[in-house]
Amino acid sequence: VNNEIGNIYPVAAVGRICRERGILFHTDAVQALGKLPLDLSLLPVDLMSFSAHKIYGPKGVGALYIRKGVKVRPLLHGGAQEMEKRGGTENLPGIVGFGEAIAKAQQDLDPEEERLRRLRDRLQNQLLATVPGTHIHGNPDHRVANTLNLSFEGIASETILVALDREGIAVSSGSACASGALEPSHVLLAMGVPRGEAKGSLRFSLGRGTTENDIDYVLEKMPQVIERLRT
Amino acid sequence: VNNEIGNIYPVAAVGRICRERGILFHTDAVQALGKLPLDLSLLPVDLMSFSAHKIYGPKGVGALYIRKGVKVRPLLHGGAQEMEKRGGTENLPGIVGFGEAIAKAQQDLDPEEERLRRLRDRLQNQLLATVPGTHIHGNPDHRVANTLNLSFEGIASETILVALDREGIAVSSGSACASGALEPSHVLLAMGVPRGEAKGSLRFSLGRGTTENDIDYVLEKMPQVIERLRT
Repeated sequence: VNNEIGNIYPVAAVGRICRERGILFHTDAVQALGKLPLDLSLLPVDLMSFSAHKIYGPKGVGALYIRKGVKVRPLLHGGAQEMEKRGGTENLPGIVGFGEAIAKAQQDLDPEEERLRRLRDRLQNQLLATVPGTHIHGNPDHRVANTLNLSFEGIASETILVALDREGIAVSSGSACASGALEPSHVLLAMGVPRGEAKGSLRFSLGRGTTENDIDYVLEKMPQVIERLRT
Repeated sequence: VNNEIGNIYPVAAVGRICRERGILFHTDAVQALGKLPLDLSLLPVDLMSFSAHKIYGPKGVGALYIRKGVKVRPLLHGGAQEMEKRGGTENLPGIVGFGEAIAKAQQDLDPEEERLRRLRDRLQNQLLATVPGTHIHGNPDHRVANTLNLSFEGIASETILVALDREGIAVSSGSACASGALEPSHVLLAMGVPRGEAKGSLRFSLGRGTTENDIDYVLEKMPQVIERLRT
């Protein structure tokens, strides 16, 4: 799952191709965990990485799935912890918290997915209807439920971001890993989105705390903000 | 400060030698932080590492001091976080907790040092007086206050460790990084401690939670446990 647009990629198909050719396959599943059902016994994947803080777990903890028999060389040496795969005293509270967060995310997966999808689609469809020059980025039919990436013709994303922040609405421009950068998203450019349009892209992320009222509020404010910025 | 025996090393002197010769100097100060006064403006050190969980801060967080002008190559790439020195979403609660733990440790440094030293010395002197064949490892005059490394002639450390655990007394044999290893401590061997003696070494660590009553209890149980194991 791409972090900026929410697109779901054909990981199983890529894995099968890799397996046929004897190529090791690692996939970053940070954005998929807790949002899609994940059954590692069904996926032809050798290595998969996860992060706790993306699913309401503690910060500072992640996990790397390593299929039995796959050898990895450690990045952090020193102690013999984690079977010499990662030196350093284990963050036990973090590890336990991550496990609990996964259990909870799995348990609520289907109803939460449905709830978020409904809210997200309402937000998207209303914005398309009420704000002229709105474009969706990403595959509308093959996205995780919580992500919405939009651009608004003629306005740079940083400009909208600051204006929305003043209204108490938090959105992001591009990925947090690259925040502060003024370059347009490399994801959108690679998808062939024109540079001008990519420069205006905003990511709306919904989550457990997002309510119908939040969506109503954003739908009320957005047309005003965009209109004000255009005049 | 050595983690197994508590010895304080002449870091400033080593630093001066390195500086005279233009050699970069890194020191692991994990065991010194919160136990000794540390003034980086006075120490000729280029890099120094610290860990939060050793001073009652959260697990999973550490710090690397880098003197201005010293360039380091990152081990973890990816995101641009921490000025591109360490990719990955920052563990903000952990960082804040570490800061608070340092502030608290600095504030209580002197009285806590004195309290621990008195408790540790009582434990050491009484054991030497009541348990025959007890040896101290490390420099008795140049140790941090909370560490006591002892061996008891003729008994392997794992044997004592298990017997003490049954009495509710937690000690360690060697360092936690190497726990599970049955080899004698590389630190003691390098110091010239005979192999047989090194195999019997135990580390008693005192801390904020250690009371006079705890010391009394250990002093009551130890002679009985050692005598039982020797017969």
